[in-house]
Amino acid sequence: MVNLDSIDTPALVMDRARFIANCQNMIATCRKRGTRLRPHMKTLKSIDAARYAIDPEHGGIAVATLNEAEYFAEHGLSDIQLAVCLPPNKLDRAAALLAKAPGFSFFIDDLDAARAVAAHDAPFNVWIEVDCGEHRTGVWELDQMLVLAQTVSGRSSVRLQGLATHGGHSYRYDKPDDIAKVAEAERMAIITAASFLRSAGFSELGTSAGSTPTAVYGTSARGIDEVRAGVYMAGDLFQAEIGCLGEDEIATSVLATVISRDLSSGRVIVDAGGLALSKDRSTAATGRDRGYGAICDRHGIPIGDLFIREVHQEHGEFECHDVELLSRLSVGTLLRVVPNHICMTAAMYDEIIVLEGDRISESWPRTNGWSRRP
Amino acid sequence: MVNLDSIDTPALVMDRARFIANCQNMIATCRKRGTRLRPHMKTLKSIDAARYAIDPEHGGIAVATLNEAEYFAEHGLSDIQLAVCLPPNKLDRAAALLAKAPGFSFFIDDLDAARAVAAHDAPFNVWIEVDCGEHRTGVWELDQMLVLAQTVSGRSSVRLQGLATHGGHSYRYDKPDDIAKVAEAERMAIITAASFLRSAGFSELGTSAGSTPTAVYGTSARGIDEVRAGVYMAGDLFQAEIGCLGEDEIATSVLATVISRDLSSGRVIVDAGGLALSKDRSTAATGRDRGYGAICDRHGIPIGDLFIREVHQEHGEFECHDVELLSRLSVGTLLRVVPNHICMTAAMYDEIIVLEGDRISESWPRTNGWSRRP
Repeated sequence: MVNLDSIDTPALVMDRARFIANCQNMIATCRKRGTRLRPHMKTLKSIDAARYAIDPEHGGIAVATLNEAEYFAEHGLSDIQLAVCLPPNKLDRAAALLAKAPGFSFFIDDLDAARAVAAHDAPFNVWIEVDCGEHRTGVWELDQMLVLAQTVSGRSSVRLQGLATHGGHSYRYDKPDDIAKVAEAERMAIITAASFLRSAGFSELGTSAGSTPTAVYGTSARGIDEVRAGVYMAGDLFQAEIGCLGEDEIATSVLATVISRDLSSGRVIVDAGGLALSKDRSTAATGRDRGYGAICDRHGIPIGDLFIREVHQEHGEFECHDVELLSRLSVGTLLRVVPNHICMTAAMYDEIIVLEGDRISESWPRTNGWSRRP
Repeated sequence: MVNLDSIDTPALVMDRARFIANCQNMIATCRKRGTRLRPHMKTLKSIDAARYAIDPEHGGIAVATLNEAEYFAEHGLSDIQLAVCLPPNKLDRAAALLAKAPGFSFFIDDLDAARAVAAHDAPFNVWIEVDCGEHRTGVWELDQMLVLAQTVSGRSSVRLQGLATHGGHSYRYDKPDDIAKVAEAERMAIITAASFLRSAGFSELGTSAGSTPTAVYGTSARGIDEVRAGVYMAGDLFQAEIGCLGEDEIATSVLATVISRDLSSGRVIVDAGGLALSKDRSTAATGRDRGYGAICDRHGIPIGDLFIREVHQEHGEFECHDVELLSRLSVGTLLRVVPNHICMTAAMYDEIIVLEGDRISESWPRTNGWSRRP
């Protein structure tokens, strides 16, 4: 194992012990509530990470793009749920994926899409997306769900796998009680819809629900066959601010190098800017705005309350008015920056450098983008 | 040539005619002002784009990362200026690059970095970065510049190539007169510094200055050997808002597909979200906030004043209250989204799909990230 100094910065690093604990905690949480976990791999996009995240009592994962689905299928997974609505012009690509991953499934919430699914000759597995209050995608009215169910079932080779929902409005709250209410809304929406469709003859429907906050703070999971959550594996400042995990449980950060320092003003510039950290500002909406990421030393220990105040494409800027500390932040110093929103940040990196303490234990390749690379 | 329907969305598309016109206009602008252009390739990161952007009277480019420098060196360019300060821990990687690109150069603004350059045995080419008022990186005091110049010149194999500055504070203004003042500050800072160091014995110094706004609105370029600018090639909403180009000259956009539509609320969801568009919100600071990007039809024609109001990782959301228009935005419809800040947006894509009208003329691979991919 080599140490941090051998890494070209900026780089995405992940503490192995924290990551594994986060994975195990979420599986245990789901088990305790009598449901199973379908980990969402949209954050880490790595087969190595998926191996730790998968619930042995479930075996499946969720993804956010066809590219991710293709990547995980190439690595041998079959029960891959694309937890996003698929438009008609992507059905051929989805059909090709079924050859490698017969368990591949996707969401629909639209009649044109349902008709296109039924008109295609591939044996698709589909979930009807239910809107449980987020008002992003998904169907709200029971009658509409029934029409979608009847439409896709027009072709016998199509399997209507179930109903799925995402309580994404949980992210609008930071109090456990409020998040628990969203979790209950998520559950009620899905069990009401399932009960309605089952009584209309669709007896084999599964139910899939989730988001990291509702997975953490939900109380009952009765009627939910599987819970989807993803960002909990890595964690980030926003997740910590809304109480989904402790800041000392965040597993991922960006390793950066000081590239410029002005002793008179206290300005310090690192080589992690808007691309390396993302321009996500989600902590701005919480009680504690952390700019573009919190500054830690090379070991991952927070340095006071320092955070990146401004970013340019390849420059991240913070101020340090502690003269003694500033004297130690010489050009070439390694730091770690904990991001606001790891799903945005991680997407810039082709690998996750896995650390045991300060030593590199291994490198996990990850996929990115929307087309399979050759 | 095939048409847009064959493209997997989201995808980065670029209008060939507009791109070429933007490249030629900037070369002509520099020529008219009696200087030469060193195009900054940090936005497009493509050798194919560089071939159009390079000023035939100059031949060099600027880049923002070592990865970009290595990529362009592999494609045969030599005069590659890394317009960012290089810390000591990256010198070995920079030295290796000199074998392929002997003209490779980089910035320094720090005494420790200058000492490390002088202590290294590679024949580095360096620019001293001058702060002309942006207060990001660069040296402000003439005496400090002299110390840096003397330090790097301690080893005869090191070539002090010149002084470089970036009037990045031009982005704080949107009136041509104000931007012209920043351009003049940029010029005065660099010619004052050059004159001081030349009189101290460093007679061979070049001068490099620039940003897209100062390149467009600067009047005199006397004393500036080369101008650096990059985002003008592609253009984006922010550049249009501050008057660097017309909105009908923006060459790049993200091709997206409608994946969900709610006829009752007018909500439309496309498959271009926070990753596909970036979370950059730079138009929020202008008189005309365009959310996360302006909506155009598949041909690139703006659709009224529609823009993406909210993004999630893979979902972009807008509202359409025109019933007739909404009826045409069925699931599966292709749209183009013009981004706020193309440097952030383009970085998510491995290729630029070059269009002639609505037909694909070619695909240009691009590099991304901070490590060379195998």
